Amino acid sequence: MEHIPILRMGSFLLITVQVDMHDRLALQLQDDLTERIVQHGSHGVLIDISALEVVDSFIGRMLGNIASMSRVLDAQTVVVGMRPAVAITLVELGMSLPGIRTALTVERGMEILRGDVENSMQELEAEEPERAADGSSEV
Amino acid sequence: MEHIPILRMGSFLLITVQVDMHDRLALQLQDDLTERIVQHGSHGVLIDISALEVVDSFIGRMLGNIASMSRVLDAQTVVVGMRPAVAITLVELGMSLPGIRTALTVERGMEILRGDVENSMQELEAEEPERAADGSSEV
Repeated sequence: MEHIPILRMGSFLLITVQVDMHDRLALQLQDDLTERIVQHGSHGVLIDISALEVVDSFIGRMLGNIASMSRVLDAQTVVVGMRPAVAITLVELGMSLPGIRTALTVERGMEILRGDVENSMQELEAEEPERAADGSSEV
Repeated sequence: MEHIPILRMGSFLLITVQVDMHDRLALQLQDDLTERIVQHGSHGVLIDISALEVVDSFIGRMLGNIASMSRVLDAQTVVVGMRPAVAITLVELGMSLPGIRTALTVERGMEILRGDVENSMQELEAEEPERAADGSSEV
């Protein structure tokens, strides 16, 4: 199975990482994800890593890359379901995932993303009332 | 990785099957899922199989078992994301998944489940107005 499925939930995308990542799979995931963000105009990406019992620097870098790519495509990334041991390992590896938000559960992650979308809409409305009103149906 | 993650989304549970199922993993999934349904009082289970390119009778049986177990625990099951080739194989294997509902996407599956929950609440209200009113906050 050479694709990690990307599930669309409203204006967010959900990825559940369950298998060991290798180079080709990670690249494929980046390709698929960026394409889906553009295709659906998604505002947020949730990455569930609750199945991962161990992480290495490769996975840490991959999470960082995905978050950066999503950001330049105007989508926020939240990593959810991290195990305590994984948090310890990541920091010991010197990867504190700067710029990536985390949440303990998918539900909490979606709340964070919804809050973000609302905030950015309010800012848009405050700055440009007319354009925001025109575009509000896209959210 | 000996667990398939089960994600809670409101009153539903979401499972994404990505790895090849073997006996022990399937049993573990049944254990985990039934426990989570009881723990959270979930009303629906979504099983995403979009990552599966092939299925065999073992997976077909497992889907049927999960649906039956969920049903006796008062949760509906919807299988989502089935590929065309998988549908062909299942029917050729003589498994047309009786009693399992399917949807093409997670979003559509959640709509079906939400419709179910509303219907059953309305039936409950029509039959027993007082008990339904007491229990409506659980949904």
